[in-house]
Amino acid sequence: MSGSTFGKLFSVTTWGESHGPAIGAVIDGCPAGLSLAAEDIQKYLDRRKPGQSRYTTARKEGDQVQILSGVFEGRTTGTPVSVVVFNEDQRSRDYSNIKDIYRPGHADYSYDAKYGFRDYRGGGRSSGRETIGRVAAGAIAAKLLKTLGIRLTAYTRAIGPVKVPSDAIDLTVIRDNPLYMPDQEYAKKASAYLETCMQKQDSAGGIVECLIDGVPAGIGDPVFEKLDASLAKAIMSIGAVKGVEIGDGFASAQLSGSQNNDPFYLPEPGKAPAKEAAGSIPAPAKSSNHAGGILGGISDGSRIILRAAIKPTPSISREQSTITRDGKNTTIAIRGRHDPVIVPRAVVVVESMAALALADAMMCNMSARLSSLQDFYRN
Amino acid sequence: MSGSTFGKLFSVTTWGESHGPAIGAVIDGCPAGLSLAAEDIQKYLDRRKPGQSRYTTARKEGDQVQILSGVFEGRTTGTPVSVVVFNEDQRSRDYSNIKDIYRPGHADYSYDAKYGFRDYRGGGRSSGRETIGRVAAGAIAAKLLKTLGIRLTAYTRAIGPVKVPSDAIDLTVIRDNPLYMPDQEYAKKASAYLETCMQKQDSAGGIVECLIDGVPAGIGDPVFEKLDASLAKAIMSIGAVKGVEIGDGFASAQLSGSQNNDPFYLPEPGKAPAKEAAGSIPAPAKSSNHAGGILGGISDGSRIILRAAIKPTPSISREQSTITRDGKNTTIAIRGRHDPVIVPRAVVVVESMAALALADAMMCNMSARLSSLQDFYRN
Amino acid sequence: MSGSTFGKLFSVTTWGESHGPAIGAVIDGCPAGLSLAAEDIQKYLDRRKPGQSRYTTARKEGDQVQILSGVFEGRTTGTPVSVVVFNEDQRSRDYSNIKDIYRPGHADYSYDAKYGFRDYRGGGRSSGRETIGRVAAGAIAAKLLKTLGIRLTAYTRAIGPVKVPSDAIDLTVIRDNPLYMPDQEYAKKASAYLETCMQKQDSAGGIVECLIDGVPAGIGDPVFEKLDASLAKAIMSIGAVKGVEIGDGFASAQLSGSQNNDPFYLPEPGKAPAKEAAGSIPAPAKSSNHAGGILGGISDGSRIILRAAIKPTPSISREQSTITRDGKNTTIAIRGRHDPVIVPRAVVVVESMAALALADAMMCNMSARLSSLQDFYRN
Amino acid sequence: MSGSTFGKLFSVTTWGESHGPAIGAVIDGCPAGLSLAAEDIQKYLDRRKPGQSRYTTARKEGDQVQILSGVFEGRTTGTPVSVVVFNEDQRSRDYSNIKDIYRPGHADYSYDAKYGFRDYRGGGRSSGRETIGRVAAGAIAAKLLKTLGIRLTAYTRAIGPVKVPSDAIDLTVIRDNPLYMPDQEYAKKASAYLETCMQKQDSAGGIVECLIDGVPAGIGDPVFEKLDASLAKAIMSIGAVKGVEIGDGFASAQLSGSQNNDPFYLPEPGKAPAKEAAGSIPAPAKSSNHAGGILGGISDGSRIILRAAIKPTPSISREQSTITRDGKNTTIAIRGRHDPVIVPRAVVVVESMAALALADAMMCNMSARLSSLQDFYRN
Repeated sequence: MSGSTFGKLFSVTTWGESHGPAIGAVIDGCPAGLSLAAEDIQKYLDRRKPGQSRYTTARKEGDQVQILSGVFEGRTTGTPVSVVVFNEDQRSRDYSNIKDIYRPGHADYSYDAKYGFRDYRGGGRSSGRETIGRVAAGAIAAKLLKTLGIRLTAYTRAIGPVKVPSDAIDLTVIRDNPLYMPDQEYAKKASAYLETCMQKQDSAGGIVECLIDGVPAGIGDPVFEKLDASLAKAIMSIGAVKGVEIGDGFASAQLSGSQNNDPFYLPEPGKAPAKEAAGSIPAPAKSSNHAGGILGGISDGSRIILRAAIKPTPSISREQSTITRDGKNTTIAIRGRHDPVIVPRAVVVVESMAALALADAMMCNMSARLSSLQDFYRN
Repeated sequence: MSGSTFGKLFSVTTWGESHGPAIGAVIDGCPAGLSLAAEDIQKYLDRRKPGQSRYTTARKEGDQVQILSGVFEGRTTGTPVSVVVFNEDQRSRDYSNIKDIYRPGHADYSYDAKYGFRDYRGGGRSSGRETIGRVAAGAIAAKLLKTLGIRLTAYTRAIGPVKVPSDAIDLTVIRDNPLYMPDQEYAKKASAYLETCMQKQDSAGGIVECLIDGVPAGIGDPVFEKLDASLAKAIMSIGAVKGVEIGDGFASAQLSGSQNNDPFYLPEPGKAPAKEAAGSIPAPAKSSNHAGGILGGISDGSRIILRAAIKPTPSISREQSTITRDGKNTTIAIRGRHDPVIVPRAVVVVESMAALALADAMMCNMSARLSSLQDFYRN
Repeated sequence: MSGSTFGKLFSVTTWGESHGPAIGAVIDGCPAGLSLAAEDIQKYLDRRKPGQSRYTTARKEGDQVQILSGVFEGRTTGTPVSVVVFNEDQRSRDYSNIKDIYRPGHADYSYDAKYGFRDYRGGGRSSGRETIGRVAAGAIAAKLLKTLGIRLTAYTRAIGPVKVPSDAIDLTVIRDNPLYMPDQEYAKKASAYLETCMQKQDSAGGIVECLIDGVPAGIGDPVFEKLDASLAKAIMSIGAVKGVEIGDGFASAQLSGSQNNDPFYLPEPGKAPAKEAAGSIPAPAKSSNHAGGILGGISDGSRIILRAAIKPTPSISREQSTITRDGKNTTIAIRGRHDPVIVPRAVVVVESMAALALADAMMCNMSARLSSLQDFYRN
Repeated sequence: MSGSTFGKLFSVTTWGESHGPAIGAVIDGCPAGLSLAAEDIQKYLDRRKPGQSRYTTARKEGDQVQILSGVFEGRTTGTPVSVVVFNEDQRSRDYSNIKDIYRPGHADYSYDAKYGFRDYRGGGRSSGRETIGRVAAGAIAAKLLKTLGIRLTAYTRAIGPVKVPSDAIDLTVIRDNPLYMPDQEYAKKASAYLETCMQKQDSAGGIVECLIDGVPAGIGDPVFEKLDASLAKAIMSIGAVKGVEIGDGFASAQLSGSQNNDPFYLPEPGKAPAKEAAGSIPAPAKSSNHAGGILGGISDGSRIILRAAIKPTPSISREQSTITRDGKNTTIAIRGRHDPVIVPRAVVVVESMAALALADAMMCNMSARLSSLQDFYRN
């Protein structure tokens, strides 16, 4: 197993190394009839593309996606959608400086320990370019979810110590700054912080937050396939993510039950229950949402909130001590231009992985009740 | 799917409701030849048993486990190990107070929305008793790992605002206080805090930390099956867990690359590499472990560190506002004795889930190299 | 992995050895709301129970099933249904005659080769009693399918050389003879054949045929999850099955295309298409059914027909040559009463496995179209 | 789910339609260190390529395979191997004759019933070209197995009524005739039979047989993951396969136990057991192999034998009656050149699927014993 497939019914298999001929993904189980074109995917890929600001590497990457299967006359056929991005700019460089050295904070050593050798060109499979496949698949999942009235919104909540406070969050300005932050002032502060990092030949991390609106109650399965568990795996599987939270997350550990419980109430009590999908029961509102929209691993119909902690870029030009493959102590200063922060580029990756986990959970939920099967097959 | 199976090669399927006849688990894929007796499992179950201190419910639960299959002449046969705990003390109570009311912070509403009706007796499948199956399976996984030189140690890192600082952690005293904290002084402070919670008819949450020592480098798979991703899913699938961290987790988001990277070094440079399993490459030490033992989703041979945020017990005797199943606003005060804090009982559950995820990952890793297959089948 | 779980959404995990304390199964993913009682399962188990005729072992096996979870107020809750049958009559016998000897045609040697030792009591996990879990799960799947208008009918098509010709098949008499054959005359012939086998201290095999009516068109997935592929795995996983056919099977290999193709026609051409589930397209009839109801791995709406070849019972009292565990040539005559033929008892097992594979495929099919998701979640 | 992934540890995901831009596969979990080049795969693809004899379509298909990932410096890296074949000769044809008509014996209707519409160009996903992905993956699996001393040999056992008798089989001549038959005389008879089919504008089916030598004892898992069950699913998932047999298959249903059991014996009794992998137990010979190398679902160390029944090519130029998509009865005569028989081209597909199922089973078997894990991780 090399773990390149995610999802039970809506599944994605990604492949490709940063300096191989191409990178891609196979999206299997996408329902038939979804209108889909390369542009739908390209829009998402462009959000992770480098060279868009001075805080991302200047590497030129066209990253033009092609759809090779699964779409006919503009709609998905229900069979696998294969997408590919050919790697440009892969002229053989001089890798002698990293070929036999394990870069601190990178997967060089752990891959070597697992496989006995590694594709050392630009990180190979552990490169950030691996996320191209995730984002291409996420674009399709997000489009599918949109047809079901579900919208995902991810943004940079914090960069290093600069964190946007809850009351300052303005979702309308996210695309107005290169850091994808929901507040222009904090975006400026974060930029200033990044400047100092760069002067020190250092890097920064941060926090990505993702909101999911429109998810009906009842999504997710008990015990091991809880919706939050699937989301946690999806998000933690992104390179550089070191922590995941749902709702108040770690903060809730300090609250008391009376503070953390979200009281239910009915805006219009007695009103005939609307949602059939919610089983002829009322669709309540909650006076707070510390739970982040998930109770007992199953969505409660309110906004889903998750957070990912992104570690600082391990590639820094500062000298660091490490070892060589043949057992000598040494030092390394990583040459070439690298992102001083990857958080802004990780925003769309987090959004994509959340979309993949949710789309799969929603498909798996369709057979939760006998009445659903009977309605489906009786017609 | 109701998501009751976890693991690819070493897998567990749990079943049972809090007030049904019994609760159990089927552990499939445990290698043949492991010495195993009911006592091995009972020891773990006793760590989660209630009634052990005034901070856990006084409900009498014998929870005696029986092994029904998969063990012959004291050793596992390689076929499924079925374990069962019969529910005592399940006299039919009066549930009229919760039957048609959705308790805030509980899964009552989300289950009802998913399935159209629910087993309302004590939470049914979403009850804390569901963890009996996890712990029974975890006990077997932990025993298996022990034969491979791997040891898991979980404890209560924090209760509410009372958090044990890193430099105060003493693993030898964990079992010396009912809260399983690694410091007696902080355990006293936490007890005091819990007293105030109880006086206020309120509850507390906290943080469980788990250390895993002896894991060889190379465990975990790239991309979606990263070791930290599997651990995150395993831990987040525990009811009441709202966040998961690996290594420094969210704190690393505020560090700079030069602070967060863990430099490698060789205590005895030039010395011939010992570990064949690590592919004739050196086994380095690290001057720090911000990464928590995992790089690029694959273990690096150092200690694995993870943390789980546990929300406060949702069952409180204070009056809370909520709604009824037939669409009325109402209030509820949850009667009966409930744990003011479940964190101490969650310690062994976190340890168990971590053991399950790790055991599975170690089995999946055996076929990572052609040379391993050749060595295995050539003999 | 010890391969004890079958199914993606509707899944079953079986456990237990012939002479352990109990045998059982966990059925996960059964939709909520199905009315279910122990009797529903017992009816199926009774069909495989021994001691019902002189052609099955006289071993007394009460095999009373208990439901331990997943059912509340007479209906499934959507959570795992755990069923158990405690093994009676497991007094420790003298196994010295088989303990260190590999019985020809049995799994003794292959299990030993795999695991290094084995539970030699009555075959352990490879015993026919392992099918109890399959049949218990199959009973639930069959009841679920019945609510969808689907009926499975399995019977003994042949015993040894005695085969019921197509034109003699009368489904109404299957339960009227102990061999479950669809013709009383052939049942008599088969009985006579079995008498001669028994006189010769020998055994017989045969063929089980299963018909599935009422399956809508569109069930099964392309490529690897074809409905016939899933059925083939389900049936071939039954001990003693050595071959599986769909429709004309091996006979079709000798036909020409013009003979084997099943022409479509419309009994009432031009009539508005009835089946919404079949996507506003006509529901055709076929003038023949060589394909056995499956085209390209997907059901075509006609009767599904499958066949399983069952090998003769390997346990015979005749002397056979074999070897000992410590490397000596020897002979063995298997003492005790054994079924001279297991085919009649295998009938309900084949029916059960077919029901499990079909129920799972029907659940997986619900998300095949975008319009289905939209209809489901829009309500 | 659209079922395009096969295998647990060694897995393949295929994608592509006959007239889309390309067809390909992603092979995930191939161990690191296997020497691999495009030619290794091309050799297998060439065996299924059309236009090699007058019995296969004259369509020109270059089918040149490219490796896009997972190979570095000539060896597999352990990460996914992505292979692609671009479709030449896909000039838009006139499909009006099949666009709205369901061809008998084809998947046109069942796909339409499932998805609501279909890619009607040359069968789309249900086309024989789908097997390109299977064969590319099978080539890698076969090369992996070869390094473990395992060899697969498939051939045409029968075409229509012309079947090669066991005693005439000569494996050395398989590649000497365009039908891949193991006897030149029978190949001539089969050719003559095909000529008559073609004169009658008709087609033929047949039987493919596959032998697997060198498989150690102990491969395959009990109950649902029996080696024969996995092989059955793998083979039955090939389009046009209607039956699968292991060993004597359906013939064994007519034998008596004394005829069908394969007696064990030791050529050199008392000799110290050789195979450590077989657990310090003797490696016996068998005087016969009716079981086809598998007992209780687990390999016994002898030759594995399986057979697949292939239906006659459904595309015939003879007029057949069928219906239109809009509900009219009609007739169709399928124009263009089609294979009068696909059996010879299916030989390499059967071999490939068997290789995939076996490679996966061998990887899953590595953790069957505690001692194996201990040996692996102690080193």
